Amino acid sequence: MTMKGIGASATEGGRYTLPVIKDPNTGLVVSDSLAIAEYLDKTYPEKPVIPRGANALIALFEPAYCSVAYGKAVDFILTKTLEILNDSSREYFIQTRLELLGEMHWEAVEEKSQQQWEDLKKGLDEIDKWYQKSGGKWIMGNAFSFADMVVACRTMWWNTIFDEEQRREFHSWNGGRWARVLADVNAECGTDL
Amino acid sequence: MTMKGIGASATEGGRYTLPVIKDPNTGLVVSDSLAIAEYLDKTYPEKPVIPRGANALIALFEPAYCSVAYGKAVDFILTKTLEILNDSSREYFIQTRLELLGEMHWEAVEEKSQQQWEDLKKGLDEIDKWYQKSGGKWIMGNAFSFADMVVACRTMWWNTIFDEEQRREFHSWNGGRWARVLADVNAECGTDL
Repeated sequence: MTMKGIGASATEGGRYTLPVIKDPNTGLVVSDSLAIAEYLDKTYPEKPVIPRGANALIALFEPAYCSVAYGKAVDFILTKTLEILNDSSREYFIQTRLELLGEMHWEAVEEKSQQQWEDLKKGLDEIDKWYQKSGGKWIMGNAFSFADMVVACRTMWWNTIFDEEQRREFHSWNGGRWARVLADVNAECGTDL
Repeated sequence: MTMKGIGASATEGGRYTLPVIKDPNTGLVVSDSLAIAEYLDKTYPEKPVIPRGANALIALFEPAYCSVAYGKAVDFILTKTLEILNDSSREYFIQTRLELLGEMHWEAVEEKSQQQWEDLKKGLDEIDKWYQKSGGKWIMGNAFSFADMVVACRTMWWNTIFDEEQRREFHSWNGGRWARVLADVNAECGTDL
């Protein structure tokens, strides 16, 4: 089954990327995680993930998060991600990520990755300040939102690719903020990620 | 009177920039527009400009606005701004802005500025989408916020530096959005900017 096959729209950059949903109640196909959140809020409004009035600002969150934290350590994260992929995915992953990073050889990515553990830490220090500023346990204070899902999903990703010592250190940063946000999001959503 | 003289903190980049307030009720001095908004909301909570729970997201707005709109046309805006300055300000303005832009000569700024009218228009098309997404006349839907003040202040700035034809064209963009946001902010705040 392909995304085109089920009638999905292309996502950023003209690619067809996951996540995608096909809603059995309406037959609609929606791709791109924020567009999916907006669709679900509109169609099933009883428990919104974008608080009223926050649509425009919530859309700024993931790009800002990426620019401040993930983007500073992208070579490191991608290098660690490559390690857990199976052979049939590796070649495609390398080719598409080199294109994304504007590099010719994976060795260049690996070399940059070696400096980026500290950069990731510093980036997360900035995101931690956003939480401190919010006045509650969520980015929007007492209101759970899509922004916290963005943060939790990064923790989930990194838990999967870091080795045990890296994971332990990561979980000690910012008073344990990152594992806690993931646990809080799991509790809020009834998931176990 | 200097900012240091009244005990103000330095703002971004270690400079002492306006706006600054000294609150006669508390004696406190606060600089940086967002910090001033946060201080006023805390001290005089009857009419907040940062809706409850939005502190962290609101802080993302001005950098995002600058990166999407103003930043794409910075040479043009600064060139037009220079035109209205008096002689005693011109030299300081040129020197500090060259530093900011990483340029050696003002001619380079002027040259880049000639391509940027269209860039400004395209950038504002993006900001207009944020308003369309918000579900109301403000960035936060039906809730007026600091974000709309940021947008209105840019319109005010540009109204001051554009010539009559540029102003007319600017006011025709996005269905008249920009002059309307300024008028709405004036009405909301009882100002006449």
